[in-house]
Amino acid sequence: MQQYSEKKYFHLPEPLPLWRGGALETVTLAYETWGELSPDRDNAILVLHALTGDSHAAGRRGPEDTKGGWWDPLIGPGRAFDTDRYFVICSNVIGGCQGSTGPASIGLSTGRPYALSFPQVTIQDMVRAQRALVTSLGIEKLACVTGGSIGGQQALEWAIRYPDAVEGALIFGASERIGPQAIGFNAIGRGAIMLDPAWMQGAYEPEQGPDVGLGLARKIAMITYQSQESMWARFGREPVSRPVAPSPFGQEFDVESYLEYQGVSLARRFDANSYLYLTRAMDLYDAVEGFESEEDALSRVRARTMHVGISSDWLYPAADVQATAQKLRALGKESRYCELESIHGHDAFLKEWEAMIRIVREYISELEPRAGGESGCTRMRWSVG
Amino acid sequence: MQQYSEKKYFHLPEPLPLWRGGALETVTLAYETWGELSPDRDNAILVLHALTGDSHAAGRRGPEDTKGGWWDPLIGPGRAFDTDRYFVICSNVIGGCQGSTGPASIGLSTGRPYALSFPQVTIQDMVRAQRALVTSLGIEKLACVTGGSIGGQQALEWAIRYPDAVEGALIFGASERIGPQAIGFNAIGRGAIMLDPAWMQGAYEPEQGPDVGLGLARKIAMITYQSQESMWARFGREPVSRPVAPSPFGQEFDVESYLEYQGVSLARRFDANSYLYLTRAMDLYDAVEGFESEEDALSRVRARTMHVGISSDWLYPAADVQATAQKLRALGKESRYCELESIHGHDAFLKEWEAMIRIVREYISELEPRAGGESGCTRMRWSVG
Repeated sequence: MQQYSEKKYFHLPEPLPLWRGGALETVTLAYETWGELSPDRDNAILVLHALTGDSHAAGRRGPEDTKGGWWDPLIGPGRAFDTDRYFVICSNVIGGCQGSTGPASIGLSTGRPYALSFPQVTIQDMVRAQRALVTSLGIEKLACVTGGSIGGQQALEWAIRYPDAVEGALIFGASERIGPQAIGFNAIGRGAIMLDPAWMQGAYEPEQGPDVGLGLARKIAMITYQSQESMWARFGREPVSRPVAPSPFGQEFDVESYLEYQGVSLARRFDANSYLYLTRAMDLYDAVEGFESEEDALSRVRARTMHVGISSDWLYPAADVQATAQKLRALGKESRYCELESIHGHDAFLKEWEAMIRIVREYISELEPRAGGESGCTRMRWSVG
Repeated sequence: MQQYSEKKYFHLPEPLPLWRGGALETVTLAYETWGELSPDRDNAILVLHALTGDSHAAGRRGPEDTKGGWWDPLIGPGRAFDTDRYFVICSNVIGGCQGSTGPASIGLSTGRPYALSFPQVTIQDMVRAQRALVTSLGIEKLACVTGGSIGGQQALEWAIRYPDAVEGALIFGASERIGPQAIGFNAIGRGAIMLDPAWMQGAYEPEQGPDVGLGLARKIAMITYQSQESMWARFGREPVSRPVAPSPFGQEFDVESYLEYQGVSLARRFDANSYLYLTRAMDLYDAVEGFESEEDALSRVRARTMHVGISSDWLYPAADVQATAQKLRALGKESRYCELESIHGHDAFLKEWEAMIRIVREYISELEPRAGGESGCTRMRWSVG
């Protein structure tokens, strides 16, 4: 009875003009869908992934896929994003390495991987490519765009850039821009990749990339996705129990072997050059860029937006998430803020399933026409056990 | 009229037994002093430096030394640590690279730098070596031990390990142990050094060390020494104004060139192997290690201790600093907590001079016998403009 989720490919019919100039000649987006598009084509939900995520947001790809998609507890028949009612789409971003065009793709003119000749793509470009995909599926207006982290920034960008194409935007742990601390950590991660001799100025062969450097970048990121409190709770100062990879200064503490494991895991599945491009896209994004003012940008929004801050998030601090909601409200928009109380830091949108399900259900129910008064998430704080 | 501060060297008369086993055959400590030891030898203050610090806490070393010592605003004639009244000593830690025995020192038996054959030294070992220095100067009891960060942890270790030798301990931004987040960042910094091909398993020649890797480690550390707020205030998302070192993904933002500059600067003055050993010593320190219990360790203290937490410190969070003071008080000790309100994060003890001067003056005045009631720092919070 199990239906497997299948990766599909969309080839943009035209070159994609880029936000920072130039164009990408040929662009492919890898995507997956769940549920059926309604005859009125008004039930589509676009799900947008985080930095190293992919199109596999839900379901299983086959019998070996025991883990399922990264938002699987949220998406499916009868789930919060109910695929009995909604047509859910998730596409891998351009610049990525999981089926969409990125630096590991073969350049038309050279017949070799782009590597560093790939142009710097931005959040704006990712959204523009997604728009082409959505249009190609016959959808003029999305019922909802949603995502966390840079996926949330893409949802915000959709609401600003294509106001007529978005009915609702549900944004987790994302604000209009990141701060200098996050930019600094991204720069250090890139520095680690480029320091690895296997990087070879980006011209490494497939499977021979800078795994150690990419692993270090991942370790830094993994710390920023968690919190002091969650790391104390999970690792404390426990001595190492399962050392990974011997090294002269390797692994006295459990947290060190955990990070090592995380670094090795990402290096197995992710392209180092993609990591360089995508973290830079994260640095560069500013929702206001290209507009006269913040008011000019935000006043374009017509979607009902819900902004979910995570109490212990220090990569996209809750106060910044809240500030966007407040600015939209001040402009008369139907925008609300909701705080997810969690010790899990930025990653809470991938961990706190009970709270996430409640938030999504409530938001989705409000997108649907129904009787009754306003249900009040604005001041609600869901505590998570 | 200017008197220059001179680096002196103390050679331990005997091998130094080490906390984690083994011994260092020959140990030299580089140190500097200011002021004169009183005939009663009761006016000595031992100042202990942070991770990459050195013995040059005060004064100038010569006409080219325009910057002065790292605590110069606090130490000198008429200053908070008044060298007209006190004899101030600061020594470079063992494991370091600024005159004291460390991995760059020549091993007796091999005639070559120790490099990775240097044993893992600990905070306990650093303090034991300092104790030998202090005793050699004819001092049985220090009027005060003081320092910030791992210097503060050394001050705490002095108070626990040598209760009869310490009248007072003034501890800035330091607690009984660091947490898994800080351990993780240290491990990543070490990983960057060891990834640098110039590291050569630690066997690099002088001046040919892994500068890029050490620079990356420094960049991570520099972020942990600051705060979200201070980085927003100082760098925001300003574009780069003075790019340092070209690179394919180099420096779009001001914060990136700042970090690059900090990395390059440390690599010029610091030994990468020392950085490996000293960060590991920071990870390993737990004030309770070797005692039956925390109560067993802390109940040894006889000094009047003052613990200064920094409101925006996330490397040694203020709550952890306060917890140590509270535990000591609960054991009937003369221990107080004071919070330095600052946006500058951990580094505030090297930046907030006005508040630091007030704290040191108040603490020192209380060490001296005088009439009058108790002056209340415990609940005081100094705001800094």
